[in-house]
Amino acid sequence: MALTATEDLPRFLRAARGQALDATPVWFMRQAGRYLPEYRAIRARHSLLEICARPAIAAEVTLQPVTRLGVDAAILFADILLPLVPMGLELEFQAGEGPVIHNPVRTGADIDALRTVDVTEALGSVMETIRLVREQLPSDIPLIGFAGAPFTMASYAIEGGSSRTFVETKRLMYTDPDAWHRLLGGMAEVVFDYLRAQVDAGAQAIQLFDSWAGALAEQEYREFVLPHTRLIFERLKPLDVPTIHFGVGTHHMLEAMREAGGDVTGLDWRTPLEEGWRRLGPDASIQGNLDPTLLFAPLPVLRRSVIDLLARAEGRPGHIFNLGHGVLPGTPVENVRAVVDFVHELTA
Amino acid sequence: MALTATEDLPRFLRAARGQALDATPVWFMRQAGRYLPEYRAIRARHSLLEICARPAIAAEVTLQPVTRLGVDAAILFADILLPLVPMGLELEFQAGEGPVIHNPVRTGADIDALRTVDVTEALGSVMETIRLVREQLPSDIPLIGFAGAPFTMASYAIEGGSSRTFVETKRLMYTDPDAWHRLLGGMAEVVFDYLRAQVDAGAQAIQLFDSWAGALAEQEYREFVLPHTRLIFERLKPLDVPTIHFGVGTHHMLEAMREAGGDVTGLDWRTPLEEGWRRLGPDASIQGNLDPTLLFAPLPVLRRSVIDLLARAEGRPGHIFNLGHGVLPGTPVENVRAVVDFVHELTA
Repeated sequence: MALTATEDLPRFLRAARGQALDATPVWFMRQAGRYLPEYRAIRARHSLLEICARPAIAAEVTLQPVTRLGVDAAILFADILLPLVPMGLELEFQAGEGPVIHNPVRTGADIDALRTVDVTEALGSVMETIRLVREQLPSDIPLIGFAGAPFTMASYAIEGGSSRTFVETKRLMYTDPDAWHRLLGGMAEVVFDYLRAQVDAGAQAIQLFDSWAGALAEQEYREFVLPHTRLIFERLKPLDVPTIHFGVGTHHMLEAMREAGGDVTGLDWRTPLEEGWRRLGPDASIQGNLDPTLLFAPLPVLRRSVIDLLARAEGRPGHIFNLGHGVLPGTPVENVRAVVDFVHELTA
Repeated sequence: MALTATEDLPRFLRAARGQALDATPVWFMRQAGRYLPEYRAIRARHSLLEICARPAIAAEVTLQPVTRLGVDAAILFADILLPLVPMGLELEFQAGEGPVIHNPVRTGADIDALRTVDVTEALGSVMETIRLVREQLPSDIPLIGFAGAPFTMASYAIEGGSSRTFVETKRLMYTDPDAWHRLLGGMAEVVFDYLRAQVDAGAQAIQLFDSWAGALAEQEYREFVLPHTRLIFERLKPLDVPTIHFGVGTHHMLEAMREAGGDVTGLDWRTPLEEGWRRLGPDASIQGNLDPTLLFAPLPVLRRSVIDLLARAEGRPGHIFNLGHGVLPGTPVENVRAVVDFVHELTA
């Protein structure tokens, strides 16, 4: 790895670099969000997009779980779809419906009509949030920035929201591969610019969410997605921050995702951790992978699951404890907190 | 296999038994349904549950794709959730929403309050549909009966409909394993009785849909699901009809699903066919696995995909061509028909 090695790095950053640890670091995807009462109090007064646009509030929300849970990293509060807005997509979060894009892109002409944007300027509020968070975060808690990967971003832009089948996404991919590659190439540019700006503003690590890439067969992922994602990771390397590459349901193509890039590979709960290391190599850093629904289990069951998961990690320095996907709404906060304590207690 | 070998069996039944073929058989999950104009014409006048309850109409709908497509098997038109109704669950299909169950089971008490039913009698209309279809089907086109597997049935009963997270399902599984096993044990009884009645009525093969089992890690599948599913397959064996075991997103646990049972394993498009045979054994029969979204692709792309898929099957007699999941609404009928012709032409 091109990463600078130093001995006094925070635990999370050491794990991302595969360095020796005093205890396994732990954080949670969506650790800021609806399951936290202090977040819901803010959300009652502001829409999701308002929170993202107002750095003081977004910073507060980013910091909430750090205080409440004792996690080893903060992650920027934002939404992976924010960069679509300055590109010209009309994004709205509808109650109970998730994201809706009122003018989805379906054709080559739609794609060519997307705006070329200076995302650093258009999403300046995100960079300001990062600066505010860094001022307030303890020095031993790094801040993770993030973005959606080109496929996942494109799938929302094409479908106009969430999808179970990705039929419009794949239809475009099969029907007009040139337009597809223009779209993903453009997304990759925007995503890289956005992530570089996040690092410039103070993000100390980056997670790229290709949440839905697992909808593709490996062969299609390699042909239609991998080159674009790889470009982002290649261009991030000189910035010298650790990178995490995450997707759900990617058991059938972990090797391809690792080839696309990322110092750390994020696994969902379907891949046993030991199989992850067997397939990705003993020196890989791996993040994961407790099933988020286990946070609804009674504490003894939850504790046994954490013990089982840590046994699979065999105390490797390259393990970052996390869920296999984001914290779900309705998750008992005390169980999330308990996992942090279990992990630290069991690995210290 | 305990199956009777005869030389003049229809192509589909020979493939299910791994016997030599004149051409690879092909059928499609959801080959009867919304993408067919003749189905939509009927659906405009009758609800889904009405069609299932009226044998003459259900038989007509079952036969529509046989006439239209030239497939090598018919599959009973019904819904996997039908057996939930006589158990006491209030099932409704809401426009655009999919199935909704108004009184989901969430507790041990809910489970113990489910009715013990004579499913053969309660779902007599299904058996009558099977008899009507058999009377009208050409003798070389077998009829496949089917049911949902206990996990998938239970997930709908617990969630009250479709789910992306299965949080209530898993919560019950983690929180009250005794109640969980009572529920799945009861489901297994109902499903077996239902399938035996289908065979008695004339179904010549059986597919068990554990569509959502892939939401579980393999370890959980083995502990909480496999024994119940295995019981069904064990009890089906003496009936001497080939059985197919299918799930989506099960790449991480194919071996466990095969252990649970089924003469044929159904794969989704994420597992390359040759990997399926490598993992399940060269003598396994495998069904699949074209991505249903490829039916929206231009014909040359679709044809190349069929050629690629058949090359992975290497002309094995134990290959049944199908999709990796059901035909999607909006699928061009002529593309579905074209796949049947491609498969027959390329393998004859």
